[in-house]
Amino acid sequence: MLDISEIFNAAAVLKGVARKTDIIPANRLDTDCQLYLKTENLQLTGSFKLRGAYYKISQLTEEEKARGVIACSAGNHAQGVALGATHNGIKSLICLPDGAPISKVEATKGYGAEVCLVPGVYDDAYAKALELKDQFGYTFVHPFDDEKVIAGQGTIGLEILEQLPDVEAVVVPIGGGGLISGVAFAIKTLRPDVKVYGVQAAGAPSMEQSLKKGESIHLDSVSTIADGIAVKQPGVNTLELCRKYVDEVVTVTDDETAAAILALMERQKVVAEGAGAVGVAAVMFRKLPVEGKKVVCIVSGGNIDVNMLNRVVARGLSKSGRHYTFIIDLFDKPGQLSSVLQTIAGEGANVISVTHERANSNSADINGCTIRLELETRDRDHIDSLRDTMTQAGFTVLN
Amino acid sequence: MLDISEIFNAAAVLKGVARKTDIIPANRLDTDCQLYLKTENLQLTGSFKLRGAYYKISQLTEEEKARGVIACSAGNHAQGVALGATHNGIKSLICLPDGAPISKVEATKGYGAEVCLVPGVYDDAYAKALELKDQFGYTFVHPFDDEKVIAGQGTIGLEILEQLPDVEAVVVPIGGGGLISGVAFAIKTLRPDVKVYGVQAAGAPSMEQSLKKGESIHLDSVSTIADGIAVKQPGVNTLELCRKYVDEVVTVTDDETAAAILALMERQKVVAEGAGAVGVAAVMFRKLPVEGKKVVCIVSGGNIDVNMLNRVVARGLSKSGRHYTFIIDLFDKPGQLSSVLQTIAGEGANVISVTHERANSNSADINGCTIRLELETRDRDHIDSLRDTMTQAGFTVLN
Repeated sequence: MLDISEIFNAAAVLKGVARKTDIIPANRLDTDCQLYLKTENLQLTGSFKLRGAYYKISQLTEEEKARGVIACSAGNHAQGVALGATHNGIKSLICLPDGAPISKVEATKGYGAEVCLVPGVYDDAYAKALELKDQFGYTFVHPFDDEKVIAGQGTIGLEILEQLPDVEAVVVPIGGGGLISGVAFAIKTLRPDVKVYGVQAAGAPSMEQSLKKGESIHLDSVSTIADGIAVKQPGVNTLELCRKYVDEVVTVTDDETAAAILALMERQKVVAEGAGAVGVAAVMFRKLPVEGKKVVCIVSGGNIDVNMLNRVVARGLSKSGRHYTFIIDLFDKPGQLSSVLQTIAGEGANVISVTHERANSNSADINGCTIRLELETRDRDHIDSLRDTMTQAGFTVLN
Repeated sequence: MLDISEIFNAAAVLKGVARKTDIIPANRLDTDCQLYLKTENLQLTGSFKLRGAYYKISQLTEEEKARGVIACSAGNHAQGVALGATHNGIKSLICLPDGAPISKVEATKGYGAEVCLVPGVYDDAYAKALELKDQFGYTFVHPFDDEKVIAGQGTIGLEILEQLPDVEAVVVPIGGGGLISGVAFAIKTLRPDVKVYGVQAAGAPSMEQSLKKGESIHLDSVSTIADGIAVKQPGVNTLELCRKYVDEVVTVTDDETAAAILALMERQKVVAEGAGAVGVAAVMFRKLPVEGKKVVCIVSGGNIDVNMLNRVVARGLSKSGRHYTFIIDLFDKPGQLSSVLQTIAGEGANVISVTHERANSNSADINGCTIRLELETRDRDHIDSLRDTMTQAGFTVLN
């Protein structure tokens, strides 16, 4: 049975190891509440996972420590365990699926772990980790369904109550449920008046479904850009703790999560991964009853792949009218392209790319040609004004 | 004459207004020192400018306050003055060149300022602001060359000494010199053993040149992605303070600044604008004698245009081998393109775009065609392996 003294103990152990991350006001986001961000994306290793992993490892017996620890993860838990073990002066072995991004493999090694690349997917790496554990007697560090790990994550709850004593609601991302279990237990024990809400990705709603149906649900498949919380089944302990201590669990779509990632970057100047942004997405898209309240969202991590970041930014630019691709029909005679470009320049738009195709079968005229102009624009009005100017200049704007 | 008591006074006035921004360890950046970031990009308004503007405004006489303030800026100073004035309960008028991004105009209005859009460039808006000041008796809030403004920025120096007492060097971006003047004065007065270094953009080295030549230099033109520090001439006060209190000023190129922006985003999970990243660039590219030292870089602001962010990310992806465009020559017969795509899929690369052109004049054969394949790749090795596989499958890879 989890006890609040265990969480206070974890806080004492983590002092000087995990950063007490800052809480920053998110007054530039469009919400209906007074929103604050608990910035665990600025934690060492880029996520809160260090807390639980470090505390778990610190509580092993000397004999267990001597045998070392093993874990399976392609992400934040791997780095948390690696750094936690190294800080405690013991060995760690992390099993990763062999398709894991080089950057994550390198980061895990960089924190001092040995890495075992297992052919296949996550489930294969997990099976291999259990096999090695049995074979060599390593201690397996579960990513969420472990009381010590949960106690470690719960220290975030203590910090929130200390840093923002008049908080009224806390919003927490849920994958397997380790983070929210610790945070909800700490907060409801000390301040039962504070609401605790959970948020899952709509493509991986294992905890939400399990709570709704009153039994542990195993999803056949999960699909979300929030890969850090793409978990098929909640833990035994975490499901029980969520049932007791969490007020409500909601889901957000990938589009909502992407919008939250972009808003956090553009307006609050912090980088969140998908899993780290779902809480903010739930608040931005009014999924939670927090109107007018003082709310803390835990931004749980920032380890987003840069290719994904690139896609999120590009999509956001296009949605907000700062990126547009015109398709224009021209007569194929000298000077036409140059004339279009002059028109664009006069309107202050930057050209990113130009594709000029003769004899496109879509052209109305056999002498016609089509150009595709990719532009940086200021906003939707700017795009409309560009379209008007080109139309008035006699060009046929198809898109 | 600036006095340290003025900076302590500014700190008292700013308490509860400006955030005491966190100092975070930047241990994931590749440097030769122990680097920390003073995260003024996470300040309200997204930059340190609020400090100086607010303090200046707070020190006006009642009569001056009643008349209101005026400023000219297309960026961070505008938002600082707007919020500073609104907090002090007085009116502000900000002159902006009419080409300023809508987002900045809206943000300035959002903080409670009236905005005057002036046709032309920055210099035109500046002239207009002075004209309106003379006409209506507003107090002009200079962006850097003002003792009160400098004292306000100096509070960052006090915070650094308090937050990291064993700091050995502080690295500060320089535009007009307001920030570094205040910080260097505070630090050298209280802790003369701590080094203070300044960093300018190589495309706008007005302070660096002025210090080197021993006289105030006016640059004819400036050009840098760090628009927040693109200043043609240092202030009279700031040049004198830098001469007395700054140990060394260096410059960084736009490429170095872009690399620092990407590294801060990818590894430290914070968004910096160009001006905010030059200090980190100077440390990353070993421009400063800080080997083994405990160093704080002031990340002065995070207000980067998202189109610029997009370019920085795209360039970074390409440089690190996570984005590549292959150009391949094919015989124009059915099944060829499909076969190439199958090869790519087998190697685990994601296709971003495909362009297929028949009868390209560059093809060796009149029956040939060229395809252009834009891919997301894992790293440079992955690109090499893709090239080998396609060559072995009989395709002619031109790039």
